[in-house]
Amino acid sequence: MIITARLTFSAAHRLNNPKYDADWNRRVYGKCDNPRGHGHNYVIHVSVKGKIDAETGMVIDLKVLKDVVRRRVIDRVDHTNLNEDVDFLQGVIPTAENLARAFWQQLAPAITEGTLHEVLLQETEKNSVVYRGEDE
Amino acid sequence: MIITARLTFSAAHRLNNPKYDADWNRRVYGKCDNPRGHGHNYVIHVSVKGKIDAETGMVIDLKVLKDVVRRRVIDRVDHTNLNEDVDFLQGVIPTAENLARAFWQQLAPAITEGTLHEVLLQETEKNSVVYRGEDE
Amino acid sequence: MIITARLTFSAAHRLNNPKYDADWNRRVYGKCDNPRGHGHNYVIHVSVKGKIDAETGMVIDLKVLKDVVRRRVIDRVDHTNLNEDVDFLQGVIPTAENLARAFWQQLAPAITEGTLHEVLLQETEKNSVVYRGEDE
Amino acid sequence: MIITARLTFSAAHRLNNPKYDADWNRRVYGKCDNPRGHGHNYVIHVSVKGKIDAETGMVIDLKVLKDVVRRRVIDRVDHTNLNEDVDFLQGVIPTAENLARAFWQQLAPAITEGTLHEVLLQETEKNSVVYRGEDE
Amino acid sequence: MIITARLTFSAAHRLNNPKYDADWNRRVYGKCDNPRGHGHNYVIHVSVKGKIDAETGMVIDLKVLKDVVRRRVIDRVDHTNLNEDVDFLQGVIPTAENLARAFWQQLAPAITEGTLHEVLLQETEKNSVVYRGEDE
Amino acid sequence: MIITARLTFSAAHRLNNPKYDADWNRRVYGKCDNPRGHGHNYVIHVSVKGKIDAETGMVIDLKVLKDVVRRRVIDRVDHTNLNEDVDFLQGVIPTAENLARAFWQQLAPAITEGTLHEVLLQETEKNSVVYRGEDE
Repeated sequence: MIITARLTFSAAHRLNNPKYDADWNRRVYGKCDNPRGHGHNYVIHVSVKGKIDAETGMVIDLKVLKDVVRRRVIDRVDHTNLNEDVDFLQGVIPTAENLARAFWQQLAPAITEGTLHEVLLQETEKNSVVYRGEDE
Repeated sequence: MIITARLTFSAAHRLNNPKYDADWNRRVYGKCDNPRGHGHNYVIHVSVKGKIDAETGMVIDLKVLKDVVRRRVIDRVDHTNLNEDVDFLQGVIPTAENLARAFWQQLAPAITEGTLHEVLLQETEKNSVVYRGEDE
Repeated sequence: MIITARLTFSAAHRLNNPKYDADWNRRVYGKCDNPRGHGHNYVIHVSVKGKIDAETGMVIDLKVLKDVVRRRVIDRVDHTNLNEDVDFLQGVIPTAENLARAFWQQLAPAITEGTLHEVLLQETEKNSVVYRGEDE
Repeated sequence: MIITARLTFSAAHRLNNPKYDADWNRRVYGKCDNPRGHGHNYVIHVSVKGKIDAETGMVIDLKVLKDVVRRRVIDRVDHTNLNEDVDFLQGVIPTAENLARAFWQQLAPAITEGTLHEVLLQETEKNSVVYRGEDE
Repeated sequence: MIITARLTFSAAHRLNNPKYDADWNRRVYGKCDNPRGHGHNYVIHVSVKGKIDAETGMVIDLKVLKDVVRRRVIDRVDHTNLNEDVDFLQGVIPTAENLARAFWQQLAPAITEGTLHEVLLQETEKNSVVYRGEDE
Repeated sequence: MIITARLTFSAAHRLNNPKYDADWNRRVYGKCDNPRGHGHNYVIHVSVKGKIDAETGMVIDLKVLKDVVRRRVIDRVDHTNLNEDVDFLQGVIPTAENLARAFWQQLAPAITEGTLHEVLLQETEKNSVVYRGEDE
């Protein structure tokens, strides 16, 4: 059984790898490399897998799950600049892929009922990523 | 190949385990334990897995699939109180998890082309569960 | 200029006019008259009309608007039974129309920047009502 | 008859009035005043009002309408920092209200079939503004 | 008070004015002039305006409204070719504008509680039209 | 890590197997067998699975992925009649299942970073199919 909570946050970011020059970055990231940044309304779906507790009828208390996601992710990234404001994203190029993996790393140890199954991150209504901890 | 039908129903429910006292229920279920109930517009996605029939180009006739879901689930839960009105939910705490499993049990034997792959149940736009028969 | 905030709540209700007998109610309200109730995820859009303040660039501070809607409507109706639990709905048949008008009456006096322009209430993804204070 | 085109763009912004000090700005704009910015996926609905042309069956050619919106708004704001990168927003605090009015001013003179009726701008799924040229 | 019902249908169409030659039609309608047609999932929102009936709490019974829309529009256009299959569209170029007006003409005389206020027709998620009977 | 791009197209189609007579086709496909066709706004989600490139932070450049989908699928099916206009669909009954498999066959060889993981095709808001190459 998988239970999923959906939360949102809004943030600015710039895609740029400082190890490479402006030409490389413009070629790889296009307009996402704008030095003054751009931004998104991100949607995050956090899924936990586990057995249904016979007494509560729940895999994990949804309030507990949402509190974990708010405390460990949303409150630290909402209304921020992802390149500059977030401690656990220092040195991370804030692509959707890297964000999903970083969010997973923040969330996985904090899920104590069931286990973290999936982090789905929508950057826009036209693109999203799914991470299930495969590279850990 | 997986084919999915999306249907909706509206129902009232109360989360409460009668084996426990009011304090336990309030602590576990919070405002979902309101004795006079609350309610939701549920969205159910029913997925069937199978091979494409070469003659019809279909895994299962979508009309047949929807008829099964309507007859075995929607018509029995729509505009009801899930705690009191539904025969196959007697004694079941109507959490999204328990509902998804109960709907699976109603649907799985009735799918005769392909096999039931997944029941996804959205309780609100902010939470959902997925059940694939794992505990059966 | 019109600014709109979107909020949600979940509630149970039953459509029934106690002045009439069971036959009348069943004929008028159909399955919505189920004595044990059913429920919905309601979506409310509250719109305020006014001039843009030159200093703030805002018609009304969205946080203020949302706080008003939460305090005067959402916190009093969310996870309730609309027929029994809500003081300002005593004696009101909780149709979408009556709810929208009752919410308007709760909100209009509390909007102090600009004026309340519209309450849009979605009961399901297939039906909604709009009220703009016409009958007041 | 009103015809509406829906387009999207992503941008960073900061809400801050440089005429006032940090305290005023923090009190008025809260976390939207983050100096390094945040961002949104904006959705813009541009509506044109007019009569149906009897020969074409159209109020305005949708391709023409979309081209105007792309050329005069989307291409100039997408993947930008609204505080710094956009010529027609110099000196404008980029609230949704001010953006909608600025977009109206860019669009109104360029609509040559029918007349601009409404600019609806969604900043997030929870808030939006509507401008119909009232203050012009 | 305005009440709105949302319904859907799927249909094929081709935009072409037989009074003009192929060049004119290609220039005006582009790929929408494909001789073998293309198609859409249309969404129709039908709004009725009226006073709330004190006995029922309703402007119009939603079931009655939906039945009217189904009988007079949906059942006649769903899974059809709009250029060829629909009696009340004979000789009408099936642009969204012309469809909305034709649907209005079918619906307005059939609304007996309240009056028809608006027909909103979405052709795709990116474009829609609104008709309120202005040219009648 | 899985990355998904969402694109849309509009097309007409008719479900009919020419090997069988009119009765068989009407029984199997119902109103979808209308000889003059009907149509849909299709939504396609194309998912690619792979490792995050450490230099770019991406599994695959989203622009590259979208270009592949546009060139190999969207540009060939948008605003067409799927039964008649599309070379790679000759002889294919255009059910959602057959379309998803045909799109997979067009896309899989063209994905050069990561591998094609899934094609999800929504025909309407009420039904969709998922194909992951199982029968290849």
